[in-house]
Amino acid sequence: MAEHVLALLSRPSREAPGDPGAPVYRFVDPDAAHLTVLDLGVTRGDGIFETLSVNHGRAQALEHHLSRFARSAAMLELPAPDADAWRETILAVVASLDPAREAFVKTVLTRGIEYGDRPTGWAYGAYSPSFESARTEGLAVVLLDRGYRHDVERTSPWLLAGAKTLSYAINRAAVREAVRRGADDVVFVSSDGIVLEGPTSTVVYRRGDALLSPGTGLGILDGTTQANVFRWAESLGMSTAFELTTPDLLRSADAAWLVSSVRLAAPIRAIDGEPLPVDAAFTARMNGWLAALDD
Amino acid sequence: MAEHVLALLSRPSREAPGDPGAPVYRFVDPDAAHLTVLDLGVTRGDGIFETLSVNHGRAQALEHHLSRFARSAAMLELPAPDADAWRETILAVVASLDPAREAFVKTVLTRGIEYGDRPTGWAYGAYSPSFESARTEGLAVVLLDRGYRHDVERTSPWLLAGAKTLSYAINRAAVREAVRRGADDVVFVSSDGIVLEGPTSTVVYRRGDALLSPGTGLGILDGTTQANVFRWAESLGMSTAFELTTPDLLRSADAAWLVSSVRLAAPIRAIDGEPLPVDAAFTARMNGWLAALDD
Repeated sequence: MAEHVLALLSRPSREAPGDPGAPVYRFVDPDAAHLTVLDLGVTRGDGIFETLSVNHGRAQALEHHLSRFARSAAMLELPAPDADAWRETILAVVASLDPAREAFVKTVLTRGIEYGDRPTGWAYGAYSPSFESARTEGLAVVLLDRGYRHDVERTSPWLLAGAKTLSYAINRAAVREAVRRGADDVVFVSSDGIVLEGPTSTVVYRRGDALLSPGTGLGILDGTTQANVFRWAESLGMSTAFELTTPDLLRSADAAWLVSSVRLAAPIRAIDGEPLPVDAAFTARMNGWLAALDD
Repeated sequence: MAEHVLALLSRPSREAPGDPGAPVYRFVDPDAAHLTVLDLGVTRGDGIFETLSVNHGRAQALEHHLSRFARSAAMLELPAPDADAWRETILAVVASLDPAREAFVKTVLTRGIEYGDRPTGWAYGAYSPSFESARTEGLAVVLLDRGYRHDVERTSPWLLAGAKTLSYAINRAAVREAVRRGADDVVFVSSDGIVLEGPTSTVVYRRGDALLSPGTGLGILDGTTQANVFRWAESLGMSTAFELTTPDLLRSADAAWLVSSVRLAAPIRAIDGEPLPVDAAFTARMNGWLAALDD
């Protein structure tokens, strides 16, 4: 079985021109070149993506990812992704991976070649690196200013806060800054002091019997894993809620996590060098449940 | 002569591995695929670029662009571009274009393939579309919130404000918002009310005998064309200065422009629907001087 696979979509959007009778996707060599230097995905970071985890041969939260993909496309005024074509392609990519190994599928839709008439779309599948250490030992995080007010999604939609775009250079620079400070990851804070999200994860924390998260409408992503974790907590009889979170509120939590599709739940063990309690047993149950999910 | 040309650099950075005896660049078909879907330039918008104008067969402000390219690379902690290799490649691209036509060269350096050992670099040359209408009739602009405070470059360098990165989705979304409002372009304003820049241009304005610009240190680009325009104004005996600019100050200017390498000086004829005087004769002289520059 190949170590990674790539499927190119012939018509990632129904609006795009092309032969409706053509195969929905074709598998190609992922190490070969398939993009020109004129693709707006690379020249302008002008596109969107999703990353789905694959557990024992099943794509997780597929419909949630597809609907978020469509929402990001709408925010960028990209042609609407053809959900059927993407679903079929994702399932084919998943089927070509070894179900015994943890894997992920990344879907990308770009605006295509400048002045062209069609978007570019692909689904890439590969095996996940081990996140055992992050899941058990946890992460030291630093709080970093995201520059924006927490209400910028409503006041200034052209800033694309809350869309999962290819313009991710800031997320990567923030993680480099964390490493420079001796930490592993980042929790972004708005310029007016509201806890937002990690560069590639959602913040979840526990206070007593409640599992909490900053929630949506703050220019942050609607977390697919956060939704699953809330579902799990509710099945245990815990309450769940979104709340406007300050750094002090986060620091006083009984426990906190960065949750994401592929790394799953990584406990936060320190914030800006101050230790935060890690509940190893609770985290292991959470990750066990996430890893056993069927869809 | 080809309508556009593409040169791939074999070692865009001296730090990158590779045969030091290999040719610095090679020309390839710009319409063919040269990038894999694993290049961080496309998956994360993780790279930088410059766009130089080419007048009668000469690259304009070449050294200024090369030094800004190096500064952007440093801000993103990319391997330092090999200035000699880039200069040689740019000049070869320029030499392969018809000197009788306005053209541009775009240089791109990405972090390369994820987990790989080398950056990706290319120089792309093509002829410019006509900007006659923008240069003579001018642009209606809207003021749009950039979300950041004007001092974010100093307080939060991980936001990469002032670096010319491939993560440009916001710049494109802002121009779509301008078009939606019946305008042509955008002037960004900081969340604390300071005039910044256009999505792909620098703001310059005239008050009496002074030519002014918001200047650097505001998380905006150090404009190569703005520097040239200041040089020209000084040669006419005008004074030039940078000043912290508010929207009111801009609206009360005697005239204002968005200046950039390829479009040159485009007068602002309206701000949020309110007319601003256009000095057609002065603009024509400015553009004539810019278009006649030798380097």
